[in-house]
Amino acid sequence: MPVEVLEKAKWELVNWHQAGMSVMEMSHRGKEFVSIAAEAEADLRKLAAIPSNYKVLFLQGGATLMFSAVPMNLTRGKATADFVNTGEWSKKAISEFRKFGTPNVVASSEDRNFTYVPKQATWKRSPDAAYLHICSNETIGGVEFAFTPDTGATPLVADMSSHILSRPLDVKKFGCIYAGAQKNIGPAGLVVVIVREDLIGQAMPTTPGILDFKKMAEADSMINTPPTFSVYLAGLTFKWLLDRGGLAAVEKANIRKAKTLYDYIDSQDFYANPVAKEDRSRMNVPFTLRDSSLDAAFLAQAEARGLSQLKGHRSVGGMRASIYNAMPIEGVEALVAFMEEFRKKHG
Amino acid sequence: MPVEVLEKAKWELVNWHQAGMSVMEMSHRGKEFVSIAAEAEADLRKLAAIPSNYKVLFLQGGATLMFSAVPMNLTRGKATADFVNTGEWSKKAISEFRKFGTPNVVASSEDRNFTYVPKQATWKRSPDAAYLHICSNETIGGVEFAFTPDTGATPLVADMSSHILSRPLDVKKFGCIYAGAQKNIGPAGLVVVIVREDLIGQAMPTTPGILDFKKMAEADSMINTPPTFSVYLAGLTFKWLLDRGGLAAVEKANIRKAKTLYDYIDSQDFYANPVAKEDRSRMNVPFTLRDSSLDAAFLAQAEARGLSQLKGHRSVGGMRASIYNAMPIEGVEALVAFMEEFRKKHG
Repeated sequence: MPVEVLEKAKWELVNWHQAGMSVMEMSHRGKEFVSIAAEAEADLRKLAAIPSNYKVLFLQGGATLMFSAVPMNLTRGKATADFVNTGEWSKKAISEFRKFGTPNVVASSEDRNFTYVPKQATWKRSPDAAYLHICSNETIGGVEFAFTPDTGATPLVADMSSHILSRPLDVKKFGCIYAGAQKNIGPAGLVVVIVREDLIGQAMPTTPGILDFKKMAEADSMINTPPTFSVYLAGLTFKWLLDRGGLAAVEKANIRKAKTLYDYIDSQDFYANPVAKEDRSRMNVPFTLRDSSLDAAFLAQAEARGLSQLKGHRSVGGMRASIYNAMPIEGVEALVAFMEEFRKKHG
Repeated sequence: MPVEVLEKAKWELVNWHQAGMSVMEMSHRGKEFVSIAAEAEADLRKLAAIPSNYKVLFLQGGATLMFSAVPMNLTRGKATADFVNTGEWSKKAISEFRKFGTPNVVASSEDRNFTYVPKQATWKRSPDAAYLHICSNETIGGVEFAFTPDTGATPLVADMSSHILSRPLDVKKFGCIYAGAQKNIGPAGLVVVIVREDLIGQAMPTTPGILDFKKMAEADSMINTPPTFSVYLAGLTFKWLLDRGGLAAVEKANIRKAKTLYDYIDSQDFYANPVAKEDRSRMNVPFTLRDSSLDAAFLAQAEARGLSQLKGHRSVGGMRASIYNAMPIEGVEALVAFMEEFRKKHG
């Protein structure tokens, strides 16, 4: 998270705006919190240019709970949905869908260990699909959609958890966008859902009330007490992004950060990134050492330099640098400097 | 929330224990957060003397999501469950159950506007009930179970959101206890579930993974990223309660606070509390002014004194003082002093 956001939260933690209480202690129906939530939504709408026929929901349970909530709300009587399988998070969304219907996997990059995005021309779509689902940035594999698929009349649904707000977004091309907050928005626990209003209101009868998109939209996401402190922190982050110049400026910074790291990785053969160049993620950069027996030494020495959380996901191993919005270019430069130093010593 | 907890959280917010990062930025699988979560669970187990055959889960979505998750997990093939209806939260639990089966309301205090707990001898239980559900403290009506029902072989399930950890708890009398965190535990968004292990493992097929009690128990509540900052704050609160001497000492303080306020309310006829004396909540004290046209003046003058959040729930009106664990006796004394002053002026 941006250090400016954390610092502001720190100084407001015990006594918010001289209200005599913490945001965590406010009644969610009191004027203070209602204004915090309304401002967070308004700032997000401004930031992502969200059209007025889209609802913004603040939910809970991470993207993982949305893997169920999306079919509960958006299958609308249909028995299948289309899925592009580009990695671990796509797989989880597909697997959870099986509780509600039969997923149709239109294309998969599992044949080459999830190192690319299958070209749209190869997708085998179902005419009966309620929607087409993508995970537009795979956190673990470091694969990102550089294009927005055109799915015609079939609503496009995207799990954007790990790259939302990292680049401009054309919301009207989507039926539903959802994202766990813990990468680019705020603390874990909050989920942001942006959904086209004509798609909601046909939830399955067993949908829990607070996962019913229509009911939550009607209640301003407050059927019950929302995760108030998380909404407040998300709001601070939206303001931080607006202050930086909005998503176009943020994208520019992210391109520079990603280019710095990928250019270095491609410049020698001690480190490598396996992803097809056009599908490389700007947020998550997995890389391997030519000699994996040096992995532990690399991680320990990096940690000693204050370069933490570089271990690859337990399911794939290797290294992974996550360079979300909050990571400054200086952090990436420090990593590259360390990598080069380590290479000279061990290469 | 206890001001000591908020102050500690403030000073640790940007840089936790010199780890160079906020709790909000930690990987939930890193050693730092794993130790925070394990310590929170251990402290809660100690505080509430939770037997080893009970699982402790940290979930999301508030008690309201549990109104669905409990039937999804605990009906175990049965079509009904017993419910005692003592107020607004009982009603919501009953209503949500209808998505999964036919609730059997064994007794209701709606006949006298939810101002008492129906005696157990009058309950009309179903022999086929999967469990018997109570809301052991009704936040809005201010009605609390002073006894733990004996339900024999039928598991007792309790929504304890608004009084958990306010008094000692005999966990083995329950099949499942659940509580939204935002009253006595921590920030909104977190839910604590304590469930007997032989009752789990038979979730309905459409149960979302992160609401499946068995799967979450096996994964230490980390199928996906948990609400890390909320778990951390809950842990700080558990330590604060242990430092105060545990639940017996906390109960003593709560009895004194509640007695101070009820004794004053009963001492004159300008204010009144409608609840049967033996069923009055120690946490939520609703009261009315003899002349309700003075309500607005009462609230405004109280607010000016720093006595906030006294407005009764929009569904019932009047006033309500919520005197959770974090409220010191001085806060109750200040309220009583103000009430007496207001009475003298307007009585």
